Amino acid sequence: MPPASSFRPRRPQARGEHFDPHVAGIEYGALDDLVGYAIRRAQILIYEDFLAALAPWDITPQRFSALTLIAANARLKLTELARILGIARSGAVQLVDQLQAMGYVARQEAADKRAYSLVLTPAGRRAHADITRAVQAHDQRISARLSAGERSQLIALLGRLG
Amino acid sequence: MPPASSFRPRRPQARGEHFDPHVAGIEYGALDDLVGYAIRRAQILIYEDFLAALAPWDITPQRFSALTLIAANARLKLTELARILGIARSGAVQLVDQLQAMGYVARQEAADKRAYSLVLTPAGRRAHADITRAVQAHDQRISARLSAGERSQLIALLGRLG
Repeated sequence: MPPASSFRPRRPQARGEHFDPHVAGIEYGALDDLVGYAIRRAQILIYEDFLAALAPWDITPQRFSALTLIAANARLKLTELARILGIARSGAVQLVDQLQAMGYVARQEAADKRAYSLVLTPAGRRAHADITRAVQAHDQRISARLSAGERSQLIALLGRLG
Repeated sequence: MPPASSFRPRRPQARGEHFDPHVAGIEYGALDDLVGYAIRRAQILIYEDFLAALAPWDITPQRFSALTLIAANARLKLTELARILGIARSGAVQLVDQLQAMGYVARQEAADKRAYSLVLTPAGRRAHADITRAVQAHDQRISARLSAGERSQLIALLGRLG
């Protein structure tokens, strides 16, 4: 269940109108044959649905990824989190500050005392369980036109890029 | 051929180290089974390679998309460009300002005189041809581990999301 009012009221920026991946009457030229543009199109659609589905928790994809990685990896350091997510250290600091302000994450002094370990708070653990179910439902919804086999195939093909 | 010095020296922000989509020893929990996270992983890898490949032209994916849409659609308006790309109007203004400063795009007074049409300059048309070849080579490179059939299948599966 989403928290009522125990977190910051700031909401992820809402988009204006719904994104149309193929606007009628528009020629897309070389874009239609690019894997990169197909990913970009999908990413915008998915992002819109994610923000709408997770709005009750004020959760963005990046915040969800951070919570999941902190939950799954004991003694995770901030620099490791940045590296895993492919973001700058400054971005990870901001991300963790936000999750800490929301009451979901705490910094704990690490054994070597030179860095902090990230942990979920009890409230963070409870919220993460609910948030994970909401994200999984969102992910199934945006891939609802694919069979289970096609969905697995899509994830596998994406994993072979780069 | 990339221009020598006719454009702004500002370069797309370089990332630090190379993104590793599966960091050794890290548990990804629910992330590994999400279409959304598979897309996010692919998008970071592709973005890195795109920026490196297009650095000679100072071209980001969004700048390339805008050039291609302006080239392929006569009398395109700024508000249409924003809608097609799924970005805010203010973002499209900034994007077109940058492409204009680079000498690739011009604003032309439209027939109804209430809005400007976007057109490529002669330099923009020449650059766009070279840039398109570089982007297509990049796109083939990042999908080099897929067969032609798998590549088409990936684009088709992505097109059924949302």
